[in-house]
Amino acid sequence: MFISFEGIDGSGKGTQIKLFAEYLQKKGIDFVIVREPGGTEVGELIRSLLLNSDLKIYPRTELLLFLASRAQIVDEVILPALRAGKTVISDRFIDSSVAYQGVGRGIGFELVEELNRFATSDVKPDLTFYLDITPETSLKRKMIKDRMEKNGIEFLNKVREAYLMIAQKEPNRVVVINGERNIDEIHAEIVEIFEKRSKSL
Amino acid sequence: MFISFEGIDGSGKGTQIKLFAEYLQKKGIDFVIVREPGGTEVGELIRSLLLNSDLKIYPRTELLLFLASRAQIVDEVILPALRAGKTVISDRFIDSSVAYQGVGRGIGFELVEELNRFATSDVKPDLTFYLDITPETSLKRKMIKDRMEKNGIEFLNKVREAYLMIAQKEPNRVVVINGERNIDEIHAEIVEIFEKRSKSL
Repeated sequence: MFISFEGIDGSGKGTQIKLFAEYLQKKGIDFVIVREPGGTEVGELIRSLLLNSDLKIYPRTELLLFLASRAQIVDEVILPALRAGKTVISDRFIDSSVAYQGVGRGIGFELVEELNRFATSDVKPDLTFYLDITPETSLKRKMIKDRMEKNGIEFLNKVREAYLMIAQKEPNRVVVINGERNIDEIHAEIVEIFEKRSKSL
Repeated sequence: MFISFEGIDGSGKGTQIKLFAEYLQKKGIDFVIVREPGGTEVGELIRSLLLNSDLKIYPRTELLLFLASRAQIVDEVILPALRAGKTVISDRFIDSSVAYQGVGRGIGFELVEELNRFATSDVKPDLTFYLDITPETSLKRKMIKDRMEKNGIEFLNKVREAYLMIAQKEPNRVVVINGERNIDEIHAEIVEIFEKRSKSL
């Protein structure tokens, strides 16, 4: 099973992935965690480029770098892990590109969907947890700003709306989780949805 | 005017670009030279990644990195230079991706053409000099091998055929130059074609 976690910065993805990984470990489920951009030697080099505040990176370049990192992680890590019967957890995946670059940076929703299909060879998560918070909560929770996080309320609102649009378009894959609640409540909901989904597979 | 030079390694692109630049300088034509991958701060970082023999880079990743470098150089250098009325000379451009990744690595001719259109915002050279040599000549001329050059005769044959296919498809843009001749002869032909084309613009 391939599961991705999505959300704007400060949505609690990192915390929830950690808790979910602990849950999988207790259950004896074999898994790997990957993060985007990064997760491979090439991908981490791309990541350091993308997060470098000193670089002026144009929107199409930014998108193509994310896609390059994604293509690499799909071939090098995700597909081999899925073939070996492991559960794969990804911190961000295709939806981040659609939301941030496609809508946030204005490249286009469908165009980025299409480019994603190329970069991933059509590999899609079976289940995506989108942790929904307001931009105001995001800015309150995050203090450190790297290049990707230097975005204001208006930008984050567009990204959030894009995420909600994706969830509406693909309700069987994307589950909207209210990320404004406390950590344990959110974790319990994620586990509940995962267990229900696992049974139906 | 936007001019690209294409060809497999050892085709003499570097030498011919140098001679052509000297010719433009003598003529008092304002120009900029860019190279791919690279040519911008971000692009040179991508270049060092692509040429690093220690990295295992999958074909889709490789293509997307070339495209990222290209998107950046189009927005940061080529478009501003063309808008300022300068002549732009590019050492490799869209055709390299079609030939090397599209055909050489088997990603697909048309698919790479389409991805090129996205990466460049449809910016195309007005004139492309494709320096045609055999793979045997290429291997004879080149001694140092980086990651991109570790390719055998069979691969280079596919790349060469792709270049010839592009030239057949776009005869108004791509001129096939016999690169097996001596340097001055080739330079003279390039200048002749450039002058004829300049007049007709």
